[in-house]
Amino acid sequence: MLAQVFDYVGTFAFAVTGAMAGARHGFDLFGVLVLAFATAVTGGIVRDVLIGAVPPAAFATWHYLAIALLAGVLTFRFLPLAKGLHHPLQVFDAAGLATFAVVGTNKALMYGLDWPMAAILGMVTGIGGGMLRDVLSAQVPSVLRAEIYAVAALAGALVVALGSLLPVPIGFFTVAGAVLCFGLRLVGINRRWKLPSTR
Amino acid sequence: MLAQVFDYVGTFAFAVTGAMAGARHGFDLFGVLVLAFATAVTGGIVRDVLIGAVPPAAFATWHYLAIALLAGVLTFRFLPLAKGLHHPLQVFDAAGLATFAVVGTNKALMYGLDWPMAAILGMVTGIGGGMLRDVLSAQVPSVLRAEIYAVAALAGALVVALGSLLPVPIGFFTVAGAVLCFGLRLVGINRRWKLPSTR
Amino acid sequence: MLAQVFDYVGTFAFAVTGAMAGARHGFDLFGVLVLAFATAVTGGIVRDVLIGAVPPAAFATWHYLAIALLAGVLTFRFLPLAKGLHHPLQVFDAAGLATFAVVGTNKALMYGLDWPMAAILGMVTGIGGGMLRDVLSAQVPSVLRAEIYAVAALAGALVVALGSLLPVPIGFFTVAGAVLCFGLRLVGINRRWKLPSTR
Repeated sequence: MLAQVFDYVGTFAFAVTGAMAGARHGFDLFGVLVLAFATAVTGGIVRDVLIGAVPPAAFATWHYLAIALLAGVLTFRFLPLAKGLHHPLQVFDAAGLATFAVVGTNKALMYGLDWPMAAILGMVTGIGGGMLRDVLSAQVPSVLRAEIYAVAALAGALVVALGSLLPVPIGFFTVAGAVLCFGLRLVGINRRWKLPSTR
Repeated sequence: MLAQVFDYVGTFAFAVTGAMAGARHGFDLFGVLVLAFATAVTGGIVRDVLIGAVPPAAFATWHYLAIALLAGVLTFRFLPLAKGLHHPLQVFDAAGLATFAVVGTNKALMYGLDWPMAAILGMVTGIGGGMLRDVLSAQVPSVLRAEIYAVAALAGALVVALGSLLPVPIGFFTVAGAVLCFGLRLVGINRRWKLPSTR
Repeated sequence: MLAQVFDYVGTFAFAVTGAMAGARHGFDLFGVLVLAFATAVTGGIVRDVLIGAVPPAAFATWHYLAIALLAGVLTFRFLPLAKGLHHPLQVFDAAGLATFAVVGTNKALMYGLDWPMAAILGMVTGIGGGMLRDVLSAQVPSVLRAEIYAVAALAGALVVALGSLLPVPIGFFTVAGAVLCFGLRLVGINRRWKLPSTR
């Protein structure tokens, strides 16, 4: 139930980022909607294919499609408004990252993966959509470059994965993991935190 | 039967476009053949993985490999000829798009997807190969930029998906959908139809 | 057993190439590790998804993750040393290519694919990780450009695929195929062998 709500929120948030990226590159309305849908559902599709849950949730119901299209149309319509926000793309991206990381970890645990690999798959669920969005825009995925990005997703996923070992309702860790990931990502952007790099 | 023929035609057509793209980028013969095969089978592989039909048709038999290699070798050999054609790549691409969109929708319906998601999966089947071809050539996929492209695939797929609700043999809608998609795409190129974009 | 050792060797080797590519592009440590892991496991994941072996080996155990992280950290730490080697990236890449091509063919045969398609899937297993590495670095995959690359993987895979038809232990052909692929690739680089191209 909670995971379902998070899944829908993440779908909406990532679809907005896909639509913004598409609009920025001058794609037409349909291209914008395709990129919105692809960004929103790719992480979950990869997750579902890897755990053998086919057809993936994104194709088993029309809910995800409807949410992604709604987000895409709204973004297309209110783009000037969105541009006025400070770092709008990053905020939506962080929301999608956080919700998908914990939802993905949850589902991977439910399908029997051990907790370390469930956390990795949660991270993949979180970063997958944004990576596709960037590759389709012919850019190096920001996940590989950005300050605290995949590491935030992993942190949130680990909270859920490790929490599942404790006798506490998983919903608690789902919320905590999402808040941790979202916070880490935004504070990381704000403070320009960087991991050590070779340059 | 009809779907099988369409599937082979689409495989050949997309393989030609992959081979042309590879040759244009100066790939060697083997690279050209790899790109021809990848362009030809990626859409169908994605479709089959998502509906749980593994191993995908492209790996379950050698037919698709043989058709793609044949198309690749012929393209490599007769490239100067192909260059003489007007928009040859787009015509072959439109043929692959049209046939794969309707075949993909058919197969998704057969595997129990609802008609709206079957149409989306048909569209994905149609545009998947070309997207991979463009990403591997380090270009923004033309599907996201081009005039009427994915929307043509969706139109053809919707004809099949909606037609399946009627008490009429599906073969009729398969042909009608393919013709509609192929026609929309070519007329769209010719008339420079564009969807609204943000630029 | 032998296949398992080869699989681990290939995982380590490809992870090193992913880490090198990431460091060269100035990714941070985490990005480097993500690219190391992705390069190391993508070929095997594609193979496992296509034959229906889910969750893929890379997610069913933590071994591959541990090996990839170890390789990534070592590369990050000793990068100046690695830069002193002659063509270090290509040597590691050739090792991953050779081991994954034969291991992939083995596994595809075990899951019932015919020998021609098992060889193709072995080739895909070998080249998949490097292709993702290059796409994520926003480059045309070297597989499509390079001299003898995918063709070396196919040669090694064919040795295993055809050898499986003979009454000889498959281990023999696994070693022979890997040696052939590794040798072909390195001699090809050294002698600047090229396949015919259109330029």
